[in-house]
Amino acid sequence: MFGIQLIILLKLYTMHYTIHEIAQILGGKFIGNGQERIYKLANLQDAAPGSISFLANPRYQKYLYTTKASAVIISQDLEIAQPITPILIRVSDPYTSFSILLQRYQAHRDVPKLGVEAPSYIGEATTCGEGIYRGAFSYIGNQVHLGKSVQIYPQVYIGDQVEIGDHTIIYSGARIYAGTQIGRHCIIHAGAVLGSDGFGFAKQQDGSYSKIPHLGKVILEDHVEIGANTTIDRATLGQTCIKQGSKIDNLVQIAHNVEVGEHTIIAAQAGIAGSAIIGPSCQLGGQTGIAGHITIGANTAIGGQAGVTKSYTKGSAMLMGTPAFERKNYVKSYAWFKQLPFLAKRLALLESLIANKIKM
Amino acid sequence: MFGIQLIILLKLYTMHYTIHEIAQILGGKFIGNGQERIYKLANLQDAAPGSISFLANPRYQKYLYTTKASAVIISQDLEIAQPITPILIRVSDPYTSFSILLQRYQAHRDVPKLGVEAPSYIGEATTCGEGIYRGAFSYIGNQVHLGKSVQIYPQVYIGDQVEIGDHTIIYSGARIYAGTQIGRHCIIHAGAVLGSDGFGFAKQQDGSYSKIPHLGKVILEDHVEIGANTTIDRATLGQTCIKQGSKIDNLVQIAHNVEVGEHTIIAAQAGIAGSAIIGPSCQLGGQTGIAGHITIGANTAIGGQAGVTKSYTKGSAMLMGTPAFERKNYVKSYAWFKQLPFLAKRLALLESLIANKIKM
Amino acid sequence: MFGIQLIILLKLYTMHYTIHEIAQILGGKFIGNGQERIYKLANLQDAAPGSISFLANPRYQKYLYTTKASAVIISQDLEIAQPITPILIRVSDPYTSFSILLQRYQAHRDVPKLGVEAPSYIGEATTCGEGIYRGAFSYIGNQVHLGKSVQIYPQVYIGDQVEIGDHTIIYSGARIYAGTQIGRHCIIHAGAVLGSDGFGFAKQQDGSYSKIPHLGKVILEDHVEIGANTTIDRATLGQTCIKQGSKIDNLVQIAHNVEVGEHTIIAAQAGIAGSAIIGPSCQLGGQTGIAGHITIGANTAIGGQAGVTKSYTKGSAMLMGTPAFERKNYVKSYAWFKQLPFLAKRLALLESLIANKIKM
Repeated sequence: MFGIQLIILLKLYTMHYTIHEIAQILGGKFIGNGQERIYKLANLQDAAPGSISFLANPRYQKYLYTTKASAVIISQDLEIAQPITPILIRVSDPYTSFSILLQRYQAHRDVPKLGVEAPSYIGEATTCGEGIYRGAFSYIGNQVHLGKSVQIYPQVYIGDQVEIGDHTIIYSGARIYAGTQIGRHCIIHAGAVLGSDGFGFAKQQDGSYSKIPHLGKVILEDHVEIGANTTIDRATLGQTCIKQGSKIDNLVQIAHNVEVGEHTIIAAQAGIAGSAIIGPSCQLGGQTGIAGHITIGANTAIGGQAGVTKSYTKGSAMLMGTPAFERKNYVKSYAWFKQLPFLAKRLALLESLIANKIKM
Repeated sequence: MFGIQLIILLKLYTMHYTIHEIAQILGGKFIGNGQERIYKLANLQDAAPGSISFLANPRYQKYLYTTKASAVIISQDLEIAQPITPILIRVSDPYTSFSILLQRYQAHRDVPKLGVEAPSYIGEATTCGEGIYRGAFSYIGNQVHLGKSVQIYPQVYIGDQVEIGDHTIIYSGARIYAGTQIGRHCIIHAGAVLGSDGFGFAKQQDGSYSKIPHLGKVILEDHVEIGANTTIDRATLGQTCIKQGSKIDNLVQIAHNVEVGEHTIIAAQAGIAGSAIIGPSCQLGGQTGIAGHITIGANTAIGGQAGVTKSYTKGSAMLMGTPAFERKNYVKSYAWFKQLPFLAKRLALLESLIANKIKM
Repeated sequence: MFGIQLIILLKLYTMHYTIHEIAQILGGKFIGNGQERIYKLANLQDAAPGSISFLANPRYQKYLYTTKASAVIISQDLEIAQPITPILIRVSDPYTSFSILLQRYQAHRDVPKLGVEAPSYIGEATTCGEGIYRGAFSYIGNQVHLGKSVQIYPQVYIGDQVEIGDHTIIYSGARIYAGTQIGRHCIIHAGAVLGSDGFGFAKQQDGSYSKIPHLGKVILEDHVEIGANTTIDRATLGQTCIKQGSKIDNLVQIAHNVEVGEHTIIAAQAGIAGSAIIGPSCQLGGQTGIAGHITIGANTAIGGQAGVTKSYTKGSAMLMGTPAFERKNYVKSYAWFKQLPFLAKRLALLESLIANKIKM
């Protein structure tokens, strides 16, 4: 027991780079003494000496002048208004650069899970690649294939005939129904459900509903991330498909037979109804709703809480409202919506003027 | 291991009906050679020879002329504009007919789970009917009763004194708190939570909140389906009740003491606040919100993302907007909302005309 | 087996207070015979003789005249219009008083869980206080600390280096990622996920997204309640923090680096985007959305489904709409929104009058 704690302590206190080394890793430029050691990454507001921070969102620029960070990663173009304490490492994209640094520190801190914890359940005809982790109380059905370095956290459920690609991580309590296919380098967060039945019922003459069986599947291509407690339903027939590189936040609903294009970003609590097709490189805001059977073109940006009820296939649209239409028009209409009581007064005034005129 | 794979292969390749047999099953009519064998069900777009498809939504009619399906189930009334390849089986309700066929193929493909996997936990004074399945790592508390042919998937949690009716299926990781009553032929999808505490707190004079204990329960009548990660809170006193035949999609919130009437359909991410009463045969769109303590009459249809803040007891209303009102009125108001900048211009023009008139 | 049932039967039938005793517990006043025994708590509508009920919401006053309850807790100021059967216990805050009574009955009915069920998993260097419960199939990682009387229900997941304060209850299937800190007297409902990665990605030049590692944590202070299937993401750096006494309902999304102030109430399906700061004693309605990086002042009330896109730091605001603005103004604008077709007609009429005038 003591051994583990000691190792972690040692790691925390021995992991560091000098400012000079960090600039080299990031291909960035700095002026000053690069020999200071950086032990920690921190926000500008919270940083202590020995920490490095970054500035990407202009909203936080005010903290640049008060931060106690030893170094700050900033844009090569940013002009500094006042004298400041930290050494500035200038790069082309501070957010990406800081992210690279985060990856370095994370790799140092978090050892990948490995091996098989007991008890865990594994079915018949199931095969596993090298270097996998299977946590305690995880359940893996029959005829499943796990690629190499797959990490299955405790209490995960994997139904029969599921395929999971190399280096994919499935966090605790995610549920993968039978027949689902997951690509390589995917991350499935805790409590996500993939492959539950689509919501399809045929209304009967007595008013009751008869369940439509769902025989299709869910497919996730490579580099897809699925947020905690998100649900993705299996297709009636064919597949519900999340294409390569798409990232889906927490508590999102993806209905049966939906297709999400490559590199599309879907924020928390968005919902996409059955058979909708979302193009590549779209951005769906939080709590957006997309109606069933419609098509959204590439690069479309949908504002938070918007409800899209018809297809926008041209691409690069920016939408807002319920039912959604072009954002720039929505913003104008909404500005007048706020003025409606005033508009109504002006109208009433005109009416009384005209009425008087007519009397005269 | 090899045995299982072989049996599945054999089943996949031996399950088939002829077109003639399918027409008989569905009570449908067709013209042509009914002896061709159908091995697969598919969407019109994806179908290969040897498949049967269906056409219910007119949106997809264009695919009828290009599909490679060997047969298609269509409405007895549909007129066909162009010559087509597949044999048409004409029925009164293609969606229901296709659903019957899906059930046949599913029954053939998916053997119901049976037996007890180890390790699993079962409490004292708990009784089980015949033909049940209890998956590994499932937890069943004390004084529970499971009816016959109940399927409890791995990692399900069932608290004390729960009752579950015959033929009900509870998928992996669903959580049934103590005292919940579930009817026959229900389906509870993965991650659903039934019986968590209602959200009730009494504000104290110091600004803190004191928890209201929730001593009531959740009752699901027969033939109810609950979607993945949906949450249904227990009543403060009495019960939260989902009546017979109602179907609830994923990620829906049903608060304490709510009553959902028979054969009501609730789409994903809808939320119903405490003590609301939803009538029978209603349809709630995705992401709708229903305020607490209100009553919604029978056959009410609520549009996606609407927020209903007062009772509509007459029944058969169609509602939209937040706060919601009659859909036909909302649609008209929203059309003018889009025109607001133009209305404002027209008003300003009139004002300047009148101003000039008055000067004159 | 028989023993347990007998004890429960005995408890159900021996737990009672007289009306006189209840009035003493609550510091309330009543007129009449206080010797009648009260065995049950019930809603006014459902109450049978031998039950006590309460009236706090005026909406339910009509049931006061028909209830079969033996006693009803009501406000000391409420005037009674008609003669009624039950004995009235008059108190200053009926809701809080009834809640105290609920706590008494609950404490009698529900024995706290205790001990360790097998199999369960516990890592290295993990320490537990006295009087804890660890349910079957629960997983507790390395270097975790559980305070005294902590209850970990079956199938809960607790990652490495988590700290959980005294008397906290974690219901079945909740997932606590590594590094999370939970205070004392907290309640975490089934399926809640604490500490999943924030939703942060840096867009690359080829259109793909690179994951931002999240090295921060989640902190819950004392007396916090988290609803079923709610998700709270860990911070990029630093912490996502829910302060003392805040109560969060089911299916809520709290993004990375959010801060929720003390005694704030967040209703179901609300979502708060990254780095937003919510002040103390706020009330967020169901399905509300809060944009990232904004600040909401103390005592702010946000109506259901509102979408707040900019900071409201003054405090005590009441907001509505998307984008949200002051509720009283929203209500006025929305009243005119409903009248828009009529306003448009009036405008058109004026236009035609003016056109005629000009012609003349």
